[in-house]
Amino acid sequence: MAGCLLAFEALDALAFRPFGDVIETAGAAVRLINQGTTTRYDCAARIDVGTSGDRPHLALFRATRRARPITISMMERHPLGSQAFVPLSDGDWLVVVAPGDGPPDPMALRCFRATRHQGVNIARNVWHHPLLVLAPEQTFLVLERAGNGDNLEEVTFSNEADSRFIDL
Amino acid sequence: MAGCLLAFEALDALAFRPFGDVIETAGAAVRLINQGTTTRYDCAARIDVGTSGDRPHLALFRATRRARPITISMMERHPLGSQAFVPLSDGDWLVVVAPGDGPPDPMALRCFRATRHQGVNIARNVWHHPLLVLAPEQTFLVLERAGNGDNLEEVTFSNEADSRFIDL
Repeated sequence: MAGCLLAFEALDALAFRPFGDVIETAGAAVRLINQGTTTRYDCAARIDVGTSGDRPHLALFRATRRARPITISMMERHPLGSQAFVPLSDGDWLVVVAPGDGPPDPMALRCFRATRHQGVNIARNVWHHPLLVLAPEQTFLVLERAGNGDNLEEVTFSNEADSRFIDL
Repeated sequence: MAGCLLAFEALDALAFRPFGDVIETAGAAVRLINQGTTTRYDCAARIDVGTSGDRPHLALFRATRRARPITISMMERHPLGSQAFVPLSDGDWLVVVAPGDGPPDPMALRCFRATRHQGVNIARNVWHHPLLVLAPEQTFLVLERAGNGDNLEEVTFSNEADSRFIDL
């Protein structure tokens, strides 16, 4: 198998902060609303869905598990807005990101393992891998920017040896 | 018990359209993405989180079930933006809304029963009741408008006899 193992770390708001925000009840501002029947957690995710003329857009993504080992041979980013993923179904999932604005360095990738109770908001222009789930099928709510212009950049690693694999 | 029974109807995109949008895979534009591993459903919800200077905001609401019968004696609305609720946990839930821009007419209320796989986006200025869940505890992702100004109006029905009750 070409490429190096990519080890995972638990998703943690502080560790993930250079790449975006974790959407979870932990650490959120809490208050009781609706005659005391509902607890409200304000997540402080930095939703960034563009400038004037753009708009927030909701979609549902139903992702299936990839073959093992999961191979990371490309990355993508959205130069015009953030993209949030919030799990609607059970199962852990993975968030693979790369630091920096230049072309993603395969050896610098980070892999965060998120629980069913953790969403993420990936910041504008942050390199990330498309959705990776660990259960056979998992559904997510996705909040992103819609509008004119090309909001997708993709990079495929030029050498097979640059691929990373996740042994999960 | 004062007040009249409020019967429920199944949540349906067409019936709900005067009040907002249903966020669900049914009826959405579908395409395969992410190397064929993910099905994307674009929901066409009319997210309306305000004008310049406003911003979209995510929160998590953990709602508990109210005592039976559920009594509807007040309604609220948000004059500055839409508010979306998407279930993150199991259980049916109820969306109580009133037509029109004037003070809500208790006898004109509609009660939609939503499944665990249906979210709603309540349009700006639509009278609705705070979150009503049928399981002991249910969590939702909420997408709404944040910014300056007062985005909440509440009306309490003046006569106890105006209350509606839901026998579920």
